Amino acid sequence: MKYVYELEMKARDYECDIQGIVNNANYQHYLEYTRHEFLLSTGAPSFSEFHDQGIDTVVARITMSFKTPLRGGDVFVSKLALKREGIKYVFYQDIYRKADDKLCLRGVVEVVCIVNGKLVEPTMFDPIFAPYL
Amino acid sequence: MKYVYELEMKARDYECDIQGIVNNANYQHYLEYTRHEFLLSTGAPSFSEFHDQGIDTVVARITMSFKTPLRGGDVFVSKLALKREGIKYVFYQDIYRKADDKLCLRGVVEVVCIVNGKLVEPTMFDPIFAPYL
Amino acid sequence: MKYVYELEMKARDYECDIQGIVNNANYQHYLEYTRHEFLLSTGAPSFSEFHDQGIDTVVARITMSFKTPLRGGDVFVSKLALKREGIKYVFYQDIYRKADDKLCLRGVVEVVCIVNGKLVEPTMFDPIFAPYL
Amino acid sequence: MKYVYELEMKARDYECDIQGIVNNANYQHYLEYTRHEFLLSTGAPSFSEFHDQGIDTVVARITMSFKTPLRGGDVFVSKLALKREGIKYVFYQDIYRKADDKLCLRGVVEVVCIVNGKLVEPTMFDPIFAPYL
Repeated sequence: MKYVYELEMKARDYECDIQGIVNNANYQHYLEYTRHEFLLSTGAPSFSEFHDQGIDTVVARITMSFKTPLRGGDVFVSKLALKREGIKYVFYQDIYRKADDKLCLRGVVEVVCIVNGKLVEPTMFDPIFAPYL
Repeated sequence: MKYVYELEMKARDYECDIQGIVNNANYQHYLEYTRHEFLLSTGAPSFSEFHDQGIDTVVARITMSFKTPLRGGDVFVSKLALKREGIKYVFYQDIYRKADDKLCLRGVVEVVCIVNGKLVEPTMFDPIFAPYL
Repeated sequence: MKYVYELEMKARDYECDIQGIVNNANYQHYLEYTRHEFLLSTGAPSFSEFHDQGIDTVVARITMSFKTPLRGGDVFVSKLALKREGIKYVFYQDIYRKADDKLCLRGVVEVVCIVNGKLVEPTMFDPIFAPYL
Repeated sequence: MKYVYELEMKARDYECDIQGIVNNANYQHYLEYTRHEFLLSTGAPSFSEFHDQGIDTVVARITMSFKTPLRGGDVFVSKLALKREGIKYVFYQDIYRKADDKLCLRGVVEVVCIVNGKLVEPTMFDPIFAPYL
């Protein structure tokens, strides 16, 4: 798959745990933030504007493989590709340490769409995401 | 698989996001905390005592399926089973809402062992975990 | 002042940072959770039920003195006293390590009430909190 | 006081709570990250390099006044001034929303220095911070 969006970020000390490395849960934050920034980059409304319209995107399933730990101060690039699959959008999200381009995390995130509490086809996102598939 | 450990917890408001539900990343915290408490319940040293001895357990891969969202104030039970598989311990960790026993999260967490920076067979954990396999 | 509510909690490893102690920001979480549980203990609606009615309680000012650091696994008791002062409720919130009753944190939290975006006298809380002043 | 360091950041959706605004505890993260980045900007070793040398800087006391809430996506500027006072360094840290320069948070953070577990005069920081006082 080809990445269609990249976001540079920096690991912060408060995200690190007793082992001196970024706590695993924070990678989920990085991936979420990347998807939300990607959404904004398309010119679409923000995640919370969709929420205010009663449209919630929800992670149904996530898989993360931790390859190389990030440390506080490490700059990294969060890259994203996506495809439409059944009722879901599947985001392939990988994180690379910038200094040496080493793969830190490989993630697959399946997102579904809930409108007024019901699972629906994410058709409102199809025109938004079409250029990136 | 048969659960060998259970921990009751309560979702806290600060763990919820703008959608009013527990943010996905916090489930990883719940699962980690459950594993650490399970370890303590066996009478073994704590996670951080192992760390001080140069023995780090590291999540190599995690898969989480989000079934029913928890809300602030919901009491839930975090259940755990495990097996030894190759060089890894695999933890099957599911979260149920206490009020109605509804499955909220199904997780599979693969943990490896790093000693002085090197991936090793987790033999120091074998006698600890043997009664629970 | 006399404490009117106490909540026992346990510091979790994921709340600790690279120094091996609970990261300062988590104490704010502990204090918030204690206030919300205190509110529930009075029989009043929850913080989020108030929010759904358009009533938001907001921290206007917080002061925390860090006395003794908590470590992962430490059990602690979060104690609370309160008084009404002008347009605010002021919560005196102290945290003690359970093992030796050592003071870990001394906090003062000033909370105001916002209804439909406007700062108001917190009169809806007066009957709820009166028995505890 | 005159600000001697500024850091631009963006509030992330996962930092927001059920009220749709950044949860208070995250401001403490913002302030900590700003101090650590300020330290790096001086050319000094990082916070965690100091930690590895047995030198820990610890927040003894923090006061935060919350003026205007940030929302997910808001860009803000975190500004810092400091002075030496007794055995402490006192950081004056204010956060402004970038769009309209509105004050969001006014913070005062007192930091002390612990070497091998003992409170000491922060003399190792004096040459580092002298140009900024």
